[in-house]
Amino acid sequence: MKLWGGRFSSELDSQAAQLNNSLPFDYRLGEVDVIGSIAWAKAIQKANILTGAESEVIISCLERILAEFRSGEFDFSPSDEDIHTAVERRLTELAGPVGGKLHTGRSRNDQVATDFRMWVMQAIDSLVGQLVGVLQALGKRAEEDMGVLLPGYTHTQRAQPIYLSHFWMGHAEALLRDRERFQTCKVHTGVLPLGSGALAGTSFEIDREFLAVELGFAQVSRNSLDAVADRDFAVEFLFAASLLALHLSRLADALILYSTAEFGFIEMADAYSTGSSLMPQKKNADPMELTRAKAGTILGRLTGLLAVLKGLPSAYDKDLQEDKQPVFDVADTLLVLLPVMAGVLSTLSIRPQKMRAALDPAMLATDLADYLVHKGIPFREAHHLSGRAVRRSAELGVGLNELPVAEFQAIHPVFENDVQEVFDFERSAAMHGVIGGTSPTQVKKQISEFWKRLASG
Amino acid sequence: MKLWGGRFSSELDSQAAQLNNSLPFDYRLGEVDVIGSIAWAKAIQKANILTGAESEVIISCLERILAEFRSGEFDFSPSDEDIHTAVERRLTELAGPVGGKLHTGRSRNDQVATDFRMWVMQAIDSLVGQLVGVLQALGKRAEEDMGVLLPGYTHTQRAQPIYLSHFWMGHAEALLRDRERFQTCKVHTGVLPLGSGALAGTSFEIDREFLAVELGFAQVSRNSLDAVADRDFAVEFLFAASLLALHLSRLADALILYSTAEFGFIEMADAYSTGSSLMPQKKNADPMELTRAKAGTILGRLTGLLAVLKGLPSAYDKDLQEDKQPVFDVADTLLVLLPVMAGVLSTLSIRPQKMRAALDPAMLATDLADYLVHKGIPFREAHHLSGRAVRRSAELGVGLNELPVAEFQAIHPVFENDVQEVFDFERSAAMHGVIGGTSPTQVKKQISEFWKRLASG
Amino acid sequence: MKLWGGRFSSELDSQAAQLNNSLPFDYRLGEVDVIGSIAWAKAIQKANILTGAESEVIISCLERILAEFRSGEFDFSPSDEDIHTAVERRLTELAGPVGGKLHTGRSRNDQVATDFRMWVMQAIDSLVGQLVGVLQALGKRAEEDMGVLLPGYTHTQRAQPIYLSHFWMGHAEALLRDRERFQTCKVHTGVLPLGSGALAGTSFEIDREFLAVELGFAQVSRNSLDAVADRDFAVEFLFAASLLALHLSRLADALILYSTAEFGFIEMADAYSTGSSLMPQKKNADPMELTRAKAGTILGRLTGLLAVLKGLPSAYDKDLQEDKQPVFDVADTLLVLLPVMAGVLSTLSIRPQKMRAALDPAMLATDLADYLVHKGIPFREAHHLSGRAVRRSAELGVGLNELPVAEFQAIHPVFENDVQEVFDFERSAAMHGVIGGTSPTQVKKQISEFWKRLASG
Amino acid sequence: MKLWGGRFSSELDSQAAQLNNSLPFDYRLGEVDVIGSIAWAKAIQKANILTGAESEVIISCLERILAEFRSGEFDFSPSDEDIHTAVERRLTELAGPVGGKLHTGRSRNDQVATDFRMWVMQAIDSLVGQLVGVLQALGKRAEEDMGVLLPGYTHTQRAQPIYLSHFWMGHAEALLRDRERFQTCKVHTGVLPLGSGALAGTSFEIDREFLAVELGFAQVSRNSLDAVADRDFAVEFLFAASLLALHLSRLADALILYSTAEFGFIEMADAYSTGSSLMPQKKNADPMELTRAKAGTILGRLTGLLAVLKGLPSAYDKDLQEDKQPVFDVADTLLVLLPVMAGVLSTLSIRPQKMRAALDPAMLATDLADYLVHKGIPFREAHHLSGRAVRRSAELGVGLNELPVAEFQAIHPVFENDVQEVFDFERSAAMHGVIGGTSPTQVKKQISEFWKRLASG
Repeated sequence: MKLWGGRFSSELDSQAAQLNNSLPFDYRLGEVDVIGSIAWAKAIQKANILTGAESEVIISCLERILAEFRSGEFDFSPSDEDIHTAVERRLTELAGPVGGKLHTGRSRNDQVATDFRMWVMQAIDSLVGQLVGVLQALGKRAEEDMGVLLPGYTHTQRAQPIYLSHFWMGHAEALLRDRERFQTCKVHTGVLPLGSGALAGTSFEIDREFLAVELGFAQVSRNSLDAVADRDFAVEFLFAASLLALHLSRLADALILYSTAEFGFIEMADAYSTGSSLMPQKKNADPMELTRAKAGTILGRLTGLLAVLKGLPSAYDKDLQEDKQPVFDVADTLLVLLPVMAGVLSTLSIRPQKMRAALDPAMLATDLADYLVHKGIPFREAHHLSGRAVRRSAELGVGLNELPVAEFQAIHPVFENDVQEVFDFERSAAMHGVIGGTSPTQVKKQISEFWKRLASG
Repeated sequence: MKLWGGRFSSELDSQAAQLNNSLPFDYRLGEVDVIGSIAWAKAIQKANILTGAESEVIISCLERILAEFRSGEFDFSPSDEDIHTAVERRLTELAGPVGGKLHTGRSRNDQVATDFRMWVMQAIDSLVGQLVGVLQALGKRAEEDMGVLLPGYTHTQRAQPIYLSHFWMGHAEALLRDRERFQTCKVHTGVLPLGSGALAGTSFEIDREFLAVELGFAQVSRNSLDAVADRDFAVEFLFAASLLALHLSRLADALILYSTAEFGFIEMADAYSTGSSLMPQKKNADPMELTRAKAGTILGRLTGLLAVLKGLPSAYDKDLQEDKQPVFDVADTLLVLLPVMAGVLSTLSIRPQKMRAALDPAMLATDLADYLVHKGIPFREAHHLSGRAVRRSAELGVGLNELPVAEFQAIHPVFENDVQEVFDFERSAAMHGVIGGTSPTQVKKQISEFWKRLASG
Repeated sequence: MKLWGGRFSSELDSQAAQLNNSLPFDYRLGEVDVIGSIAWAKAIQKANILTGAESEVIISCLERILAEFRSGEFDFSPSDEDIHTAVERRLTELAGPVGGKLHTGRSRNDQVATDFRMWVMQAIDSLVGQLVGVLQALGKRAEEDMGVLLPGYTHTQRAQPIYLSHFWMGHAEALLRDRERFQTCKVHTGVLPLGSGALAGTSFEIDREFLAVELGFAQVSRNSLDAVADRDFAVEFLFAASLLALHLSRLADALILYSTAEFGFIEMADAYSTGSSLMPQKKNADPMELTRAKAGTILGRLTGLLAVLKGLPSAYDKDLQEDKQPVFDVADTLLVLLPVMAGVLSTLSIRPQKMRAALDPAMLATDLADYLVHKGIPFREAHHLSGRAVRRSAELGVGLNELPVAEFQAIHPVFENDVQEVFDFERSAAMHGVIGGTSPTQVKKQISEFWKRLASG
Repeated sequence: MKLWGGRFSSELDSQAAQLNNSLPFDYRLGEVDVIGSIAWAKAIQKANILTGAESEVIISCLERILAEFRSGEFDFSPSDEDIHTAVERRLTELAGPVGGKLHTGRSRNDQVATDFRMWVMQAIDSLVGQLVGVLQALGKRAEEDMGVLLPGYTHTQRAQPIYLSHFWMGHAEALLRDRERFQTCKVHTGVLPLGSGALAGTSFEIDREFLAVELGFAQVSRNSLDAVADRDFAVEFLFAASLLALHLSRLADALILYSTAEFGFIEMADAYSTGSSLMPQKKNADPMELTRAKAGTILGRLTGLLAVLKGLPSAYDKDLQEDKQPVFDVADTLLVLLPVMAGVLSTLSIRPQKMRAALDPAMLATDLADYLVHKGIPFREAHHLSGRAVRRSAELGVGLNELPVAEFQAIHPVFENDVQEVFDFERSAAMHGVIGGTSPTQVKKQISEFWKRLASG
């Protein structure tokens, strides 16, 4: 069944039909398409296009079709060129010719935009649910791993001692931003296009605000040309997904690094590790590597849709059909990545001794400079003097903490015996007590605020 | 001058220095860097690192440096490796050794993140200002061009008659969304990283909330590791810019099409047209073609920064230096594209007769189907019958409106003489009276709401 | 069945398994995996790992598996985690424990790289075959449409008259470059990784050159680390595909434009057009719009894979599994787009009168300038004078060819009565007789060379 | 000066002029533009447009302009809208009105395409020169570091022992492919567009093959429409650059990893390291991090140009002006990255003892399985048994090599005392003697072939 053709004298070429056929992916809009159609049936009854009796028949048949989708029993026909055609074909089978009244005043242009927005809103709810799972896993780790010190890195080089809980909370911050972006995207998606017709609105007296309420949209679109051509919400969805994937990738990359033999800070559970077909000893963090890789693929999907949309001139062009596949793929991918990340986080083992052993006294060189600052040396000079101490300790082959006080004093007479107090990792961390710093007090505050923000979001 | 080096025994290779040197682009952060440093001087005085007298000297010297930046008199030295170094070097020239105290408790990691956020917030203000100019131009066109009908297109094929004002308002909708996205981005950017140190916070008692107030940030970052590594705001900026550029591209593409000899709906002012070095008759819409092209370049910059960030493992990596060039370039580009678009819109001439002449009676085939619906024919059948009428009129070589009533009746007996009333473009448009439709009433409502939304945004 | 696990104490988490499972896409490597395994069986027999009898059993079972793949009868098991596992599991079912010998000296790392290269080489052959179909369609159109003049456009503005055949040949040039790029890509793909083991080579005496000959590879990889990690060939494939898609998009865009009511130069066959669910009169070039859109999606897939690969540190990382889906998707897409484009070109109708009617005498303004050049006026001045004539004709509201000689002479006295001869479109085209120009002689030469290049490629 | 304007009645708007002005970047085409113009002067003299005397004057003035460009003395005028205008303006200043004859038969469309191709060919020569420098550095390292064993990694986990020279040669393979891609790109770029006019060819008798020889092009373009619109060569350049950048990024990422405190395999020279403004002890591999980052930016430039080109309909559109900035930027970037990489490689210190210490006996588990294979156990079972041995050694807390023979025999009775011989890293490496394997013999062969390929390329 096709929804057009009166003016055509020959059939669509089979390969053109294959290209044109969106059913291989838009079948996923089945449920929302039917729900949208039920609301439409009510709206056109209100506009006196359907009688009450007609409306009842149509709605009850649509409800049956909805049930068929939900139970997986809906039968597609080879002639269905898209999901809308399939639903109308089935409706007509069930309801007879009255089914042909449903499409009055409606175009596939506004219909598909409505369906797709409904789908995206539902997908955001699912994704946010899974994202909260990852956030909870981070929060629990932060609580459980309290008190464990490890090197903080910049440039992948040891920088300053931090608490592991601080590290987990850092990643949680990024994911909280992602949650907010998805929620904003959902608000932007909740603008109803239905009633915009093909491009000019509809000539029947449709109560669009009624439709919005029925379908859970907070707003009604204000310009019909824009409404059928606007895919900003889909691009925003892919963008929010790209940043989320990027944050997951950064976390995955850190976990891969920390689980190398050389770092040895964590060990993945066997349930999230795989082996080698050749090398019996291997234990690989495949799920984290795939997480890292998927971020690349996802940003490519964003790029692709932006490139599709650039330069389209008119209200609706068929190019817009290329919007759904990337959104579906990306949503599916994230719905696997997120629970896997939650699982990895919940089940990994930490190796506090390895973390401790990686703390090098030279990581307190900044504290040494700060020590000099407290003695009145300008920081820039203090930094230079501390650097010279680092170099001297390397020349002597001793740890910075093992440098004799005389050596310190040779660098600058202001050094005193109390310089030794600097070389205490816990003391260093405790002193980083500004908001957001790594002191135990601040970290605990971060965690307690984190749970509040998570609950209120 | 370098801000490090105590532990190093040799100089940086000259080409590595060239690669490392960010001054060719980060010089643009000069003003915000100084403003941030003034606030920092106050904060470290409050933390008793500076005396009141030291603070006064430093601040007055910084104010002089700010004036030098604003007047273009600041002299860079070949040894400055970035803007922060340049400012500290100059401060020390002016203030003497006390200048070396300013960097106490601060790292370039939190400093550059702060500077960059300040720059982006300012850039958003400028961009939104120019964007409002384009919106005003669209609003004025919509008011002035009221009453002019032209074909609405889907698939670049004539679809249904619409009002030109409706077309302008459609593009305005997209740009209003862009304004909102930039405003949201500004909110997300307004989170202060200063005080996060290199990664762990600072060990001095810095009042970060005081700093936020001083520098116009609404929030203080809550985790120091995240604060120095987070570039979500820059990516969001590029994303908002990409969608804006895409919307400008779509509008530009429509204007290029409408100004072809074949469409002839509009003519660009000479002030926005260029000629050919070879063909004397040519008048080309170069500014619109460049607008279309820049959308491609801008989406590439977004893609590029996303790819830079994917997979970085640690708090701060030097890779993050690659964040500024795309943001600067894209802001600069949009600050040219926007006023050009405003100018093009304000100065173009419309050709209402050409638009009218392009209205083809077959564009009322939907109205013809609706006519049948009002006679009780289900829409699906009505659509088919109308399609047959289109085909018949083509066979007879007459306009759809010229098809004799007998021919209509041969298609279906329900057709009556009143079918002729369908073929009235104004009547068709007037009937599209749903919210967002192309009826004059609705278009006027769109325009009046548009001005309100523009004013309140 | 898994190919590893001796050292693991628990099973893979179900969602991690889903993420890790590549069978949903790498099942397509079934045939090449078996073919590669047959060659491997021969190679390890040569290395005395298998006896002749063992080899015979294994090979005959593999041939049966190959037949199962070809007939669609191969049964996957839920426990198969990838295609290699599935084949080895089935082999062991058929051959018994001796099947467990096949993987000796081989890793999935070198195996999958080999399979994938074989698949890409086959895909290139298919794509080039379909691409030749499009080229033939262009060549035939160029021959059939000989003698038809239409406006050549720059900036979508009428520029100079050209022959339609010249237009078709211009697009053929781009596609000939695409063919060459795919052929180069095939050469680069034909480097055998098999025998590189997991990363270090294999410790058995495998004759890799024998394997290359067996499997149709022209070269053997020269470094085992690189061999298992190199995906340049896949990226090159996506790049060649992106440029091809871009060229198809440009052609599609031109055809969409030329089939608007306003241009009216061509009409698509009904077999490659679709209608509207709402507007009975619509005839849309959906297949061409989808062609245009797919170019955006495809460039996103290229971008995505590049982003996946950037920055991977070690020989083989699981990230590389993300290479196949984009290549498969893109190949599938092009295998639909290409025959559709060939069909569209072969079946479209041209409207020579509409093309002729669009030739505007002002398009000969360059010829007018050249006329002055022949009279001794420097071109720069001649160009200016011709521009003034264009402007004068616009002021008088006449065609440039209708401007009285006296008006020409008022612009410059060198104009004579023979200026009228300039206004002959065929004469203009005929004068563009340089290599590659639009003169009939040159166009015929282009066509005849085109067929030779097509045959020899 | 503008090269057009006779038909225009008002000046270009100042911001539109800024947008349109390509001189801020295309000034770099100065030299090639003049060289192309000299050849053009000769060609139009051959076509009798210039007399011998005119040609001499023009050519000697152009040579003077060329000298001005080379010495940096060329003065641009604020009115020059692009490089072609600037050169023609200067020519007319020097030569008088006869300068106005030079543009006869030529358009900026074919001129800029020619200039740009000449520039790209020169840039490729420069890049390949620098790339060879990196390859030589890799070759020298491979020779000097012969005999040093380190862990080979897959999934960033220790996999099998390899020679460091093997690692360097693996990266060299990738860069040799890049060199070949650039060389192919140069061949594709060497197709002359000059003589194609604006789109239709030229009406004067220009000997295009003479021009090609003069300007170092191996071929002449065969279709004028395609010649002015084709930017495949620029996209290919960006693609070759993207893959090169990606390979540099992968190498940089490995070097960053190997220079962490935790791996400790290499130490960067101070000349290629930088410090921290805050942390005195830090030594960061900034140049390698920037190399990694630039790969992201470069792939964004490729994406951007592809998006610009997608869907342009006509022969030449102004959008094509957006081609040069990305190519210039990317070439500049690579011309810094390449010598820095060569310098880093040449100056880094290796830590063979740290590499040795990282060799874990469990990395010989594959050799252990191979040992069982030689005893007649099918590999799949051997792999499993070896995995059990790995697990048993972990349970006992001993190295795999320290597992008592009795324990091995408890796993399978086929184990004998000779199992101890397996645990010899040099022996393992030596056995990987297939082509491309890590045995000393093979590595030496790789190196000697490498130098031959490098010399012959």
